[in-house]
Amino acid sequence: MEETTLRRKPTIRDVAAAAGVSRGTVSRVINGGRWVSPAAQLAVEEAIRATGYTANHHARSLATGRADSLAFLLTEPQHLLFADPTFALLLRGAAEALAQRSMTLVLLVAGTPGERANVAHYVSAGHVDGVLLISSHESDPLLADLLAGGIPTVCCGIPLGHQGEVSTVSVDEIESARTMTRYLLGQGHRRIAMIAGPNDTPGGRFRRVGFQEEMGEHFDPALVEEGDYGQESGAAAMTRLLERTSDIDAVFAASDLMAAGAIGALRKVGLRVPEDIAVAGFDDSGFAANQEPPLTTIRQPWDRISDEMVSLLLDVIAGAPHRSVTLPTSLVVRETA
Amino acid sequence: MEETTLRRKPTIRDVAAAAGVSRGTVSRVINGGRWVSPAAQLAVEEAIRATGYTANHHARSLATGRADSLAFLLTEPQHLLFADPTFALLLRGAAEALAQRSMTLVLLVAGTPGERANVAHYVSAGHVDGVLLISSHESDPLLADLLAGGIPTVCCGIPLGHQGEVSTVSVDEIESARTMTRYLLGQGHRRIAMIAGPNDTPGGRFRRVGFQEEMGEHFDPALVEEGDYGQESGAAAMTRLLERTSDIDAVFAASDLMAAGAIGALRKVGLRVPEDIAVAGFDDSGFAANQEPPLTTIRQPWDRISDEMVSLLLDVIAGAPHRSVTLPTSLVVRETA
Repeated sequence: MEETTLRRKPTIRDVAAAAGVSRGTVSRVINGGRWVSPAAQLAVEEAIRATGYTANHHARSLATGRADSLAFLLTEPQHLLFADPTFALLLRGAAEALAQRSMTLVLLVAGTPGERANVAHYVSAGHVDGVLLISSHESDPLLADLLAGGIPTVCCGIPLGHQGEVSTVSVDEIESARTMTRYLLGQGHRRIAMIAGPNDTPGGRFRRVGFQEEMGEHFDPALVEEGDYGQESGAAAMTRLLERTSDIDAVFAASDLMAAGAIGALRKVGLRVPEDIAVAGFDDSGFAANQEPPLTTIRQPWDRISDEMVSLLLDVIAGAPHRSVTLPTSLVVRETA
Repeated sequence: MEETTLRRKPTIRDVAAAAGVSRGTVSRVINGGRWVSPAAQLAVEEAIRATGYTANHHARSLATGRADSLAFLLTEPQHLLFADPTFALLLRGAAEALAQRSMTLVLLVAGTPGERANVAHYVSAGHVDGVLLISSHESDPLLADLLAGGIPTVCCGIPLGHQGEVSTVSVDEIESARTMTRYLLGQGHRRIAMIAGPNDTPGGRFRRVGFQEEMGEHFDPALVEEGDYGQESGAAAMTRLLERTSDIDAVFAASDLMAAGAIGALRKVGLRVPEDIAVAGFDDSGFAANQEPPLTTIRQPWDRISDEMVSLLLDVIAGAPHRSVTLPTSLVVRETA
C-alpha cells in the first residue's frame, strides 16, 4: 500500500474515465453498488483495479489525527449477536451509514469482564473515534468507563442509570407498549398477559409500564412473567402463565423471539394462535414476518436508529453537546393477533 | 480510565483476596467464566468492581508499540456473517483464543470496494497487529493489498492465487471429499451427484477434485452442479439436477446449507431422504445436527482452525516465517445418508 503514495494517486475522475461512466456511478459502486447496473458495476470494479484507485484516507487521517472508524460495541455474550436478529439489523444500518462517509465500522464484543477490560483499553488507545454502544443492562460498567474516559459515545436505548449523561437514540417504549395494548383491548381481549423483558433493561422496564398504564383496571400482576428476550425464555414464561391461569385470551411479548417461543408453548398444549389465544410481539426485525403464522408486532425503525446513532456520534466527536433522540414506532398487524 | 493510573493499580491478587477465592478462579472469570460456580463468579465480579481492577494492558502496549488486537476480517457481504453459521463458529473460537491472551478481537467486514479501501487503510494504520483473513474467493484483491503492505496475515482456507505466499490454516479438502464419496459408494450408491461450491474457492475446487477422483469410472460430469454454499443455491442446483436426470441415488453437497436446500427441493417433488435419495453435506457447523432429519456430513474442526489461526498469526507478528497447517476432518454419519 506504500507504493501508491509515491506516484500521483488516481482519483475518482480517473476511474470514471477508465470505466466510461459518470463519477456518480463510481461513487455508488464504491459505497455498496445500489442503483448500479451489473455491467456498470463490473466496468467500475475493473477500472478501480486498472487505475489502482483507493479512497484518499491517508491524507485525511494525517490531517485530523483520527482513526476514521467507529466501534459498534456489543456488551452481550457473543452468541447473542447471532441469535438475536435485531443486532444484525443495527450492524447493517451502521455499516451502510459509515460506508457512505468512507469510515470503517469496527465490531467489538465485550461479554465478559476480561473482554470488557480489553475493549476499554482498545477504545481508549484511540483505535476508534467513538463508540456506538449496543447495551441494554442497567449500569453497564463499560458505559461508566467510557464516560469516565471521555470517549465519544452514543447509546442505543435509554441507558438506565446514566440518563441525561450521554447521547442516546431510543424509541418511545411506553407509548409503543400502550399502542399494542390498546390494539389488543380493541380486539375485545381483557385477560391480557405480558411476557416482559428483564427489568434492568429499558425495553423490559418501560414496555411493562406502558402495558400496565393502558390496561388500567384490567391490569392483573399475576399475568406478568419475565423472559430474557430469547425464544426459549418466551416458551418458559408462557408455560408458567398456563400453569397458573386458564383464562388468558391474549399475550403481549416484549420481543418477537419471545412471542415465537410463546406460540410454540401454546401449540404444544394444543392451543391455536390466534383462535384460542392471540399473541403479539415487539421489534419487527424481519423474523416476525417470516414466522408461521406471521407475527403481529411493533416495528422499530431500525434503519433510522442506526442512521441517527452514527449522526449523533459524529456530532459528539465534532464537539457537540450530548443529545437524545426518540423515534416513533408503528403497529404492524399480521395474523397472530 | 485515567484515574486508575494515578494510584497503585489493583492486581489479580487484590481481587482474589477481596473475593475470597484463588487467583486461578479470578483468572477464569476474567477469561469467560468457564469452570466457575455462579457464587464465585458473582463474588469475583463484585471484587473487580470494588477494587477497580483492570488488566494491565496499557503498560504492555506502551512497551511493545502494539495494538494488542487482531482483526477477524471477512471479505464477504455482511449478510453472510449471519446467514452462514460457519463464520459465527470461527468468530467465537478466535474471540476465545484472544481472550485467553488478553487481546481484543476486532471484526471488520469488507464486502464492497469502498469497505475494502477503508479496511485496508484502517489495518495499515496499525490499529490491529495482524489479520485473520476469512476469505475464500480467488485473487481477493484485499489479500494482495495486505501482502503488499507487509501486514501480518493468516488465511483461513487455501488462498487460491497466493498459495505459498502467506500462512494458512486449512482442512484437507481433497481427502475429506474422497472420504465422503467413499462412504456413499460403500452404501451401494453409484449415481452420485455433487452440488459443488464456486470454483474460485478452495472448498469449491478441491472438494470437486476429491469427489471426481474417488468416483473414478462412475464419475459423470452431467451429475455436477454448482451453488454458492447458501441454502437457496442448493435447492436450485437440486432442481436443475432433477430436471436433467431421473436416476440419481445420492447427492453430496459441498456445504450443509446447500444439502438442506437440496433436501427441501427433493421434498417438494415428493422424494424422501434418505429412502429415495441420500444427501450428505460438508461443515458440521451445528446447523447439520439440528436439521430434520439430522445431516450426514464432514466435520471441520472449527475450534482447532481458529486456535491454529491465532497461534500462527502471533508467530508471524513475532517474526516467524509463513507456514501452512492442514487439519484433518471426520465423517459424521447421521440420518440423511
